[in-house]
Amino acid sequence: MLSTMNDGPLSIARIMRQGTGPHGATAEVVTWTGAESRRSGYAEIGREAARLAHALRGLGVTGDQRVGTFMWNNAEHLTAYLAVPSMGAVLHTLNIRLFPEQLVYVANHAEDHVVLVDHTLLPLFAKLLPEMKTVRHAVVVGGDASALEAPAGVEVHGYADLLAGQPEEFDWPELDERSAAAMCYTSGTTANPKGVVYSHRSIYLHSMQVCMTDGMALEQGDRGLAVVPMFHAMSWGLPYGAFMVGASLIMPDRFLQPEPLVAMMTAERPTMAAAVPTIWQGVLAELAKEPHDISSLREVVIGGSACPPTMMRTFQEDYGITVVHAWGMTETSPLGSLARPPAGVTGEDEWPYRVSQGRLPASVEARLVDDDGRILQWDGLSIGELEVRGPWVAEAYYGDDDPEKFHDGWLRTGDVGYLTPEGFLHLTDRAKDVIKSGGEWISSVELENQVMAHPAVAEAMVIGVPDEKWSERPLVAVVLREGETADAAGLREFLSGSVARWQLPEYWTFITEAPKTSVGKFDKKRLRKQHSEGDLDVIHLT
Amino acid sequence: MLSTMNDGPLSIARIMRQGTGPHGATAEVVTWTGAESRRSGYAEIGREAARLAHALRGLGVTGDQRVGTFMWNNAEHLTAYLAVPSMGAVLHTLNIRLFPEQLVYVANHAEDHVVLVDHTLLPLFAKLLPEMKTVRHAVVVGGDASALEAPAGVEVHGYADLLAGQPEEFDWPELDERSAAAMCYTSGTTANPKGVVYSHRSIYLHSMQVCMTDGMALEQGDRGLAVVPMFHAMSWGLPYGAFMVGASLIMPDRFLQPEPLVAMMTAERPTMAAAVPTIWQGVLAELAKEPHDISSLREVVIGGSACPPTMMRTFQEDYGITVVHAWGMTETSPLGSLARPPAGVTGEDEWPYRVSQGRLPASVEARLVDDDGRILQWDGLSIGELEVRGPWVAEAYYGDDDPEKFHDGWLRTGDVGYLTPEGFLHLTDRAKDVIKSGGEWISSVELENQVMAHPAVAEAMVIGVPDEKWSERPLVAVVLREGETADAAGLREFLSGSVARWQLPEYWTFITEAPKTSVGKFDKKRLRKQHSEGDLDVIHLT
Repeated sequence: MLSTMNDGPLSIARIMRQGTGPHGATAEVVTWTGAESRRSGYAEIGREAARLAHALRGLGVTGDQRVGTFMWNNAEHLTAYLAVPSMGAVLHTLNIRLFPEQLVYVANHAEDHVVLVDHTLLPLFAKLLPEMKTVRHAVVVGGDASALEAPAGVEVHGYADLLAGQPEEFDWPELDERSAAAMCYTSGTTANPKGVVYSHRSIYLHSMQVCMTDGMALEQGDRGLAVVPMFHAMSWGLPYGAFMVGASLIMPDRFLQPEPLVAMMTAERPTMAAAVPTIWQGVLAELAKEPHDISSLREVVIGGSACPPTMMRTFQEDYGITVVHAWGMTETSPLGSLARPPAGVTGEDEWPYRVSQGRLPASVEARLVDDDGRILQWDGLSIGELEVRGPWVAEAYYGDDDPEKFHDGWLRTGDVGYLTPEGFLHLTDRAKDVIKSGGEWISSVELENQVMAHPAVAEAMVIGVPDEKWSERPLVAVVLREGETADAAGLREFLSGSVARWQLPEYWTFITEAPKTSVGKFDKKRLRKQHSEGDLDVIHLT
Repeated sequence: MLSTMNDGPLSIARIMRQGTGPHGATAEVVTWTGAESRRSGYAEIGREAARLAHALRGLGVTGDQRVGTFMWNNAEHLTAYLAVPSMGAVLHTLNIRLFPEQLVYVANHAEDHVVLVDHTLLPLFAKLLPEMKTVRHAVVVGGDASALEAPAGVEVHGYADLLAGQPEEFDWPELDERSAAAMCYTSGTTANPKGVVYSHRSIYLHSMQVCMTDGMALEQGDRGLAVVPMFHAMSWGLPYGAFMVGASLIMPDRFLQPEPLVAMMTAERPTMAAAVPTIWQGVLAELAKEPHDISSLREVVIGGSACPPTMMRTFQEDYGITVVHAWGMTETSPLGSLARPPAGVTGEDEWPYRVSQGRLPASVEARLVDDDGRILQWDGLSIGELEVRGPWVAEAYYGDDDPEKFHDGWLRTGDVGYLTPEGFLHLTDRAKDVIKSGGEWISSVELENQVMAHPAVAEAMVIGVPDEKWSERPLVAVVLREGETADAAGLREFLSGSVARWQLPEYWTFITEAPKTSVGKFDKKRLRKQHSEGDLDVIHLT
């Protein structure tokens, strides 16, 4: 029996229409410029998106070609979010914090045809561009385009020049909702980053979740502060969610330090905000130094790495702001779970729920699996690896089925914990081999391999250890070869040629033997125990 | 370029899993029994749904066969809502208020194989069953099944007996999200009701909208009072929305009179509720007679016919309850628009927005079309017929493309009005030929035809006139044949053989000539003007 319902696709064009139409005159995007804001109404963003789409067509962008962005959170990046997928091309948000070799790898792997780049990022980008083999056009947003030297075969354009005179309307094509809309690479546990390709359908459904009351509850009255970068899992869905319901957006551009963030919040009065714990820690420290009025905030969503309960308490008790703890991954679009206490639970009783990773929505199926592949009970006791599946969860990487990570449509999250009968997720261990530093991932396996490449090193183990500023940083435990000598500073210097600067470890310890499991693998549990019990002599490089 | 996202279907089974799993122990459905409530946790409803699915398989229900319900709002109807579509069959909610001939027509047209019937509705149902040609099994819910005499070829079962001993789990099949899940007939402007067939996809997306903050904002903490019948456009999406997020449901069963409704609200403390204006009018009158505490209500959603602004004011000013005015149709699942004032608008300024039909969400595209098929501006001035399109809007009727109603995926709503630049819908005229009486539709064309069947009548015109209790009732203007006589009471008596009792008109007027347009059609505008200016002698039968 056939349904009689309309079969039109879920699409970003539909989201754009809603934001630029009914909400075009009232909703706005605000971009911080350091001391003040520049602002554009959503109707104007819609016209800009049409101009950008025409300009990109003019540069030869056809079909599902990739258009990269190398940009901060700002109005022009938002314009690209709307224009690129809606014209049928694929938005590739380049994570500017990846190691240069990784950035070159991902641009080549995705085969980016055009890259839009913020002029403030040109010093970094200029070194990468000659290695990006498929890029034919670089479009410089703001500043002076001529500051970027064009390698052979690449044309450099100024964004404003390119858009000037383009038509204000574009005949957005009707697309298959399962076609690719955007892609984001995740720097995971293996050598090369892996690409997640979002579809129009997955983004549309995820945007609805962002606006569900049990989701981020984003609504037309909101002014959403997107601190989480637009190159991090689509800024957690805020930009598309905001356009879907006509909420305004506040964008910090490159001003992610506590002082300008607080100034911006005071000036622009966000009602909700999303960022990793490290950012909030800085903001709270800044507020402790000098009080500012941030009472406009109803709620802040914190994820990316586990939020310290004390931080949640400080927000609640000192500022009256509710922290919503969230869990997700690039592979989950990223909304995986949100910690809202169950109905009827109030006051002090809320906390055990609020510090958990929360509940998964109907669209994110979950199961816990033990080492032998058995499905575990949601009994609040059984601990296993979390696997998830659903319409905004990846089931493969771009060009890589990765059976270690995906099987039968399920994503192995690498996160370990338990689920209560009420469906609250409690992650007790990090993904085995990964350290989360300020919301960015550091692979311990990679670091180990790099350290072990040093001729004096016999074995190296890396674990994550708590860090006040970055949540977690790597600690390297080194076993030297017999008769060899090396010190922490020398080893770090050795790494600096192959490891991204922000990943360089500052914590080191020298041990005589690496703890191993019965099957001869590094026993990180034992090393963690030794560390937590103070049995290791840790050197802290500054 | 392929997306890497999981392609699992949106389905009612997914909604059911969320309600019965994480929310199974905390959310409940409450059914009013006249003086008190009976209650079932969602986990128990899940087990009942499995039992019901096994029982229906046992009765031979396979594939997408139709299972009808002839029921009030109660726990068993909710169980059928979950079980029937999730097993792959199609839930057909029979509107018990249709004329018997229409009910027989729709059951035969949908080819219902089984019908579940509340024992309290047996007197009505018993007369219909012998005419329902495809029904093989009638399942009596509550009471004594033997009270229903089985016609030849039909087996009668007791619901409790049928479910007893059935397994508590069912292996719900994976279904195509575009397959039929439920159907609902609408008694429209033509002789026979038309079937709208909802898909799993359309219901899933609509449920998300119900739970969006800019939608009905349904969330886990809610206790939703579903006064609007489950045979009326799926009770406006409350049952599935509630299961999607774990909100509790309060069901009035057959106790839809003001007194028991108020008693139930006092006892069960709903936080939100949905019903047509007529019901609320009765509730407010009851409260005015004798005060009760209904302060648990955060919001009431009113739709089905235009809500009088005075009623909205009374709710707000006397009870502190926000009325959300909504527009929709069976064909729109039904959420078409919701009147929440724009961001920043407060106090007295809210009212022009709140009394409008509100804004349409991103998933419901709208346009205004004039008589010549031209698309009109959203300028707050241009008046045309509203057309809508989207993933939970019908683009055909079951077995009937109805090009008068649907074209190019668009639904011609029959509602006339204007849209403001901010996207607020203002309906200024009723659908041309339809009268809305207490949320039910009465076709003026049908009534006219029936009156004109009387030998003494030359011409008859029917228009809707305001009525305090029912919002609108039909007024019949009769032109008698020369030399013939007839009075209002006699004509009404004549109609009673062919027109449903509640549709029988009480307002009559006798005119010497029917006002006509230049092309000879009845000019209802002129008749309405004559009525509103007091130029007609109206007889009011009681």
